[in-house]
Amino acid sequence: MWELRSISFWRAVFAEFFATMFFVFFGLGAALRWGTEPMNVLHIAFCFGLAAATLIQCVGHISGGHLNPAVTFAYLIGSQMSLFRAVFYIAAQLLGAVAGAAVLYGVTPTSIRGNLALNTVNNASVLGQATTIEIFLTLQLVVCIFAVTDERRNGRIGSAALAIGFSVTLGHLLGMYYTGAGMNPARSFAPAVLIRNFVNHWVYWVGPMIGGAIGALLYDFLLFPRMRGLSERLAVLKGSRPPETDGQQDNRGDPIELKTQVL
Amino acid sequence: MWELRSISFWRAVFAEFFATMFFVFFGLGAALRWGTEPMNVLHIAFCFGLAAATLIQCVGHISGGHLNPAVTFAYLIGSQMSLFRAVFYIAAQLLGAVAGAAVLYGVTPTSIRGNLALNTVNNASVLGQATTIEIFLTLQLVVCIFAVTDERRNGRIGSAALAIGFSVTLGHLLGMYYTGAGMNPARSFAPAVLIRNFVNHWVYWVGPMIGGAIGALLYDFLLFPRMRGLSERLAVLKGSRPPETDGQQDNRGDPIELKTQVL
Amino acid sequence: MWELRSISFWRAVFAEFFATMFFVFFGLGAALRWGTEPMNVLHIAFCFGLAAATLIQCVGHISGGHLNPAVTFAYLIGSQMSLFRAVFYIAAQLLGAVAGAAVLYGVTPTSIRGNLALNTVNNASVLGQATTIEIFLTLQLVVCIFAVTDERRNGRIGSAALAIGFSVTLGHLLGMYYTGAGMNPARSFAPAVLIRNFVNHWVYWVGPMIGGAIGALLYDFLLFPRMRGLSERLAVLKGSRPPETDGQQDNRGDPIELKTQVL
Amino acid sequence: MWELRSISFWRAVFAEFFATMFFVFFGLGAALRWGTEPMNVLHIAFCFGLAAATLIQCVGHISGGHLNPAVTFAYLIGSQMSLFRAVFYIAAQLLGAVAGAAVLYGVTPTSIRGNLALNTVNNASVLGQATTIEIFLTLQLVVCIFAVTDERRNGRIGSAALAIGFSVTLGHLLGMYYTGAGMNPARSFAPAVLIRNFVNHWVYWVGPMIGGAIGALLYDFLLFPRMRGLSERLAVLKGSRPPETDGQQDNRGDPIELKTQVL
Repeated sequence: MWELRSISFWRAVFAEFFATMFFVFFGLGAALRWGTEPMNVLHIAFCFGLAAATLIQCVGHISGGHLNPAVTFAYLIGSQMSLFRAVFYIAAQLLGAVAGAAVLYGVTPTSIRGNLALNTVNNASVLGQATTIEIFLTLQLVVCIFAVTDERRNGRIGSAALAIGFSVTLGHLLGMYYTGAGMNPARSFAPAVLIRNFVNHWVYWVGPMIGGAIGALLYDFLLFPRMRGLSERLAVLKGSRPPETDGQQDNRGDPIELKTQVL
Repeated sequence: MWELRSISFWRAVFAEFFATMFFVFFGLGAALRWGTEPMNVLHIAFCFGLAAATLIQCVGHISGGHLNPAVTFAYLIGSQMSLFRAVFYIAAQLLGAVAGAAVLYGVTPTSIRGNLALNTVNNASVLGQATTIEIFLTLQLVVCIFAVTDERRNGRIGSAALAIGFSVTLGHLLGMYYTGAGMNPARSFAPAVLIRNFVNHWVYWVGPMIGGAIGALLYDFLLFPRMRGLSERLAVLKGSRPPETDGQQDNRGDPIELKTQVL
Repeated sequence: MWELRSISFWRAVFAEFFATMFFVFFGLGAALRWGTEPMNVLHIAFCFGLAAATLIQCVGHISGGHLNPAVTFAYLIGSQMSLFRAVFYIAAQLLGAVAGAAVLYGVTPTSIRGNLALNTVNNASVLGQATTIEIFLTLQLVVCIFAVTDERRNGRIGSAALAIGFSVTLGHLLGMYYTGAGMNPARSFAPAVLIRNFVNHWVYWVGPMIGGAIGALLYDFLLFPRMRGLSERLAVLKGSRPPETDGQQDNRGDPIELKTQVL
Repeated sequence: MWELRSISFWRAVFAEFFATMFFVFFGLGAALRWGTEPMNVLHIAFCFGLAAATLIQCVGHISGGHLNPAVTFAYLIGSQMSLFRAVFYIAAQLLGAVAGAAVLYGVTPTSIRGNLALNTVNNASVLGQATTIEIFLTLQLVVCIFAVTDERRNGRIGSAALAIGFSVTLGHLLGMYYTGAGMNPARSFAPAVLIRNFVNHWVYWVGPMIGGAIGALLYDFLLFPRMRGLSERLAVLKGSRPPETDGQQDNRGDPIELKTQVL
């Protein structure tokens, strides 16, 4: 529980709130329909992707830039953060998402609001298909995040934030047609709360969470294994680590510190 | 006032004039309507964003590549430049923007000019909504700029100019529908001057300036605080610093020098 | 045959399977037709390109991130991998592609499946034209891959994965009109297997393989020659090299190791 | 004339031929009209831009990756290459462009060829306007190229090739409407030769050449001056420099070597 007394912990939680709020504000906003032309999937996909890229640039070095409960869950599965921190991150992301959607609701003319870009399953699809799609969308996102923030690499990676953003764009280029592209329970949760419509809402939690967990296990145990014992992994999950000295990097290998250094 | 005698100061002021001229020329030009199809927001958003990315690559190492009075104002609020320099930057940006719009006016067939891509508030929106949108658009831009030019980071940031450009694109992908996406008082000012239409023009100054100021305070005091005393901040604002030796980097920690090194 | 006993070899083969599966799943999926508007080539081209970029980020440091038999063939021609490894890579890519297409088939409503984005030659084109197009598409891709993963360079290359992804996008922006843009026999093979249609299928093997081979020879012997003797080249092809110690980099100049370091 | 005896000189000339051939092949090809929808400027702009980015990645470290007589002319004005080398580069670019257009002509069905994406001035524009547009398009491109390949910078530049490619995209997003976006005399020359139509062709030489020259002078003397005497500049232009030892970098400050190191 030492994290509770750390300023940088609360700063990270606030960063997740702030970034998820803006991510949802821009993503949902771009998916509203202003005209009568067919939905421009490319437009929406770039808006979600560039929102992710921009906001991960903004807070990646502060909180790791998850903006997504499925990503936080994946980091938890990969033993790269404490359970305690994960709970606060996810709460901040959900609150931030609802705040972003609420601001959007407030600034948008009534005639345009529609269902506030609620994620809905395509009529022709069954729920198993929709969940599978969400698993695949999130799986590639999480493996991409784990790969570009892997501190063991030092090649020509370029911008980690942009790589993650383009992975989000990729998911939307396909997923918009099938499920509206959730990939992020916070993004799906926010409009559901505001317009009080939770039909099939579980799909947008179960799919991304399974996808995130598989992605973490796949990367961490199969594709590019980390040699860490069970006790070490448990220690990270419990957060049992002496309180850090605020404001200076100590490079003792704390996963969150390392993540935020590469972002 | 030592800056007045510095060649690199005048070079930076000219760079802001030059880059803002080209930014406005390309941005407004892409937003003109040549055909009868519906407005292609993706096209316009990429044009503004890639114009920002390209021109920040061009002059980022010379002036910091603000191209935007709201960004200069944010740097002032963040105590990263002198008041004196800020005034000259903003004047150069406004002059450059008007010059860019004037060139565009001159080279564009009369039938195409229209309102020269003047920023106008969507009919269905009230002015408070429009101002809020402008605040949000500029806030994410300024936090992104502060984050990618933060000399304390050394992770996988990639191109700072491209990250900022994509943040500009992001703002337009949403904002075009609501307010035409100002985000930059110089960009809004230029067509207003040329076609002499200042209806609701204050929205495009008040929104971005508030957004820029909030962004600077948020990043500098909350998200990733700089440990600097009030006296140090005031010294930067006043520009009370011995004249630099032109043409060589001295690395004494002058904010402008540091900014221009990372860009 | 020492590679057979190396865990990192099997990990690389699995990485090729995994990444090609996702590449084909996203690429084909984005090319399905959900509405009645004209085909959006830009959408499809970005989906293929960002899929390549994302998945090369995911597995580039594990297997080199080929995802494409023509690329593996080019590396073989360039004496940068053993024949043995190439055979396993290509088998993994073909299996992965079929798996990805099969998942897509399973999750897509029957009315939307169509021909599952099968590569077909434009009606107005003759097969020689189509093959030439495929050669050109793959040639630029392979030269780009060789250039951005060349360990002898250390300039401003940025992200190798993104550069390769944009090269894939480039190929689709032109090739979609002519041949549906194969550029990758695994991508062309997968829908052909699933809908049992192999009309003109040879074009999508012969074109990319020739293009890949020319690209490798051009880069390696003409544009930026490697000074290596025939015996050294043969040794790489045969894979006659003492088994590596798993899990540590030895920097003895093994081509695969070097490639995976820059990615 | 020592360059004539250098293998790396001929390799660079061939690289310019090769890259310009592919640049023109892809650029013109994407601008052909296959359907009846309105011209998709975003599609064409990305194709030209990503072609530039990809091919500069391919040959930037070999020849500098000009692909454009106006860029070569700008480097000549900026005293960064010999007159001798410039002449050979421009000849290689023109030959390459015609070769690329000829291949495109050969592989494209007759009904689609049209005017092979010939640059034409918009009906409503007068030639002075068109020339001004071409000057502005090329000016931003050349300043961007000079800035991102400036060996005196070491900030967060990211990929030089991608930055230049996006500058090309930017030029097309605006210029397509006015002049078809030349920006590159080789690109304009190739279709003019193949369909034997040189109406207003001078616009596409005079505009880019003036733009390139202004860009070079602006960057080199005003924005970020190089402290070099006239005699030094003349020595570079004359190419009076002892023959280099092939295949090894000597870092004696030869401009071409330095340029190709950062690319």
